[in-house]
Amino acid sequence: MINADKKRTQILEAAMRRFAHFGMAKTTMAEIAQDLSFSKALLYYYFPDKNALYAAVLEHVIDQSFGTIEAALPSIDDCEQAIMFILDKRIEFVMNYYNLLEHAASAVQQTPDEMARVMEELKDKEITLISQILQKGAGTGQLQIDNARETAEIMLYALAGMRFSLMKDLKGGLFPTKAEFDRILVLQKKMATIFLRGLRKQSA
Amino acid sequence: MINADKKRTQILEAAMRRFAHFGMAKTTMAEIAQDLSFSKALLYYYFPDKNALYAAVLEHVIDQSFGTIEAALPSIDDCEQAIMFILDKRIEFVMNYYNLLEHAASAVQQTPDEMARVMEELKDKEITLISQILQKGAGTGQLQIDNARETAEIMLYALAGMRFSLMKDLKGGLFPTKAEFDRILVLQKKMATIFLRGLRKQSA
Repeated sequence: MINADKKRTQILEAAMRRFAHFGMAKTTMAEIAQDLSFSKALLYYYFPDKNALYAAVLEHVIDQSFGTIEAALPSIDDCEQAIMFILDKRIEFVMNYYNLLEHAASAVQQTPDEMARVMEELKDKEITLISQILQKGAGTGQLQIDNARETAEIMLYALAGMRFSLMKDLKGGLFPTKAEFDRILVLQKKMATIFLRGLRKQSA
Repeated sequence: MINADKKRTQILEAAMRRFAHFGMAKTTMAEIAQDLSFSKALLYYYFPDKNALYAAVLEHVIDQSFGTIEAALPSIDDCEQAIMFILDKRIEFVMNYYNLLEHAASAVQQTPDEMARVMEELKDKEITLISQILQKGAGTGQLQIDNARETAEIMLYALAGMRFSLMKDLKGGLFPTKAEFDRILVLQKKMATIFLRGLRKQSA
């Protein structure tokens, strides 16, 4: 069982490197198998097709990234700093996995259920994370919040708005360019700063 | 010339009624001409095709709506109330012209240049309007704002995020349902409240 999980992880790592470097379209299952000296049959034993593998790779890198963030968060006391840290990490993530993620935009449109599930989970994880930070800020008396989960949702939707609105062309699930992402981060940080100031506890 | 403009307006109003009631796809140029007892040739003299007419109708109803908002704004002193008024009017506008607007989402995707221009102008008008309200709030000392235009942009992008994020399915320029719009308005108002509180001048 441990060995089986190890093989699965090896496949995910190899696929991640291929996808991140050459993109999803230009990578074949045969090439990934070759990288590992595995048989193609073994790959297909773990992942029924390239879409399923892609979704699993995405989930894998998302989990890794959340792991890094969650490990660092406890040492950040100020909730404004914590949010800014997450925003930076998010963009860093996008930049690191640009080629990998570019496919996600169109994959969601073709909506293999697997991808829809990964995106739903990502959304839920982000809401939970932000909501914990807001809750912590409320606990220390820094913020005043009625409903931490809804407030986290509103904040994440607002941040997402920076992205959608900056893209000139939304057809075909187009992915922002790297320059657009730079501008998006600047606006997201300004948005978050104003938003968090709006949540600050007013001294009565 | 006055007569020519009058005819153009008559066509716009007749097309608006048809589009709003039956939708764009189920309306023909012949039907609009018939409603007015105009010849089809006359319609085509003003509008080269149905797409151009559609874009002009959209521009017409947007102008009307901005006219109503701009007429009411001077009597609203509080900038928070002014923003909430605009949000209400925006949703009212969407509800009134639901069938008309539904087509806009897909029309933008097919991007006739005419539609792209109308959407650009709409965006610019909204930014200008919000930015004027923020500026006014800064003038009365209610708000503290560095760059009113950029702040207005951030606010509008954030509001747009409520819409994009609530729609479960973004493929094919899908248009939110009326129930989704209700929820969108609730979140937009909460967002705007927090955002504006974040812009409030802090008593030193």
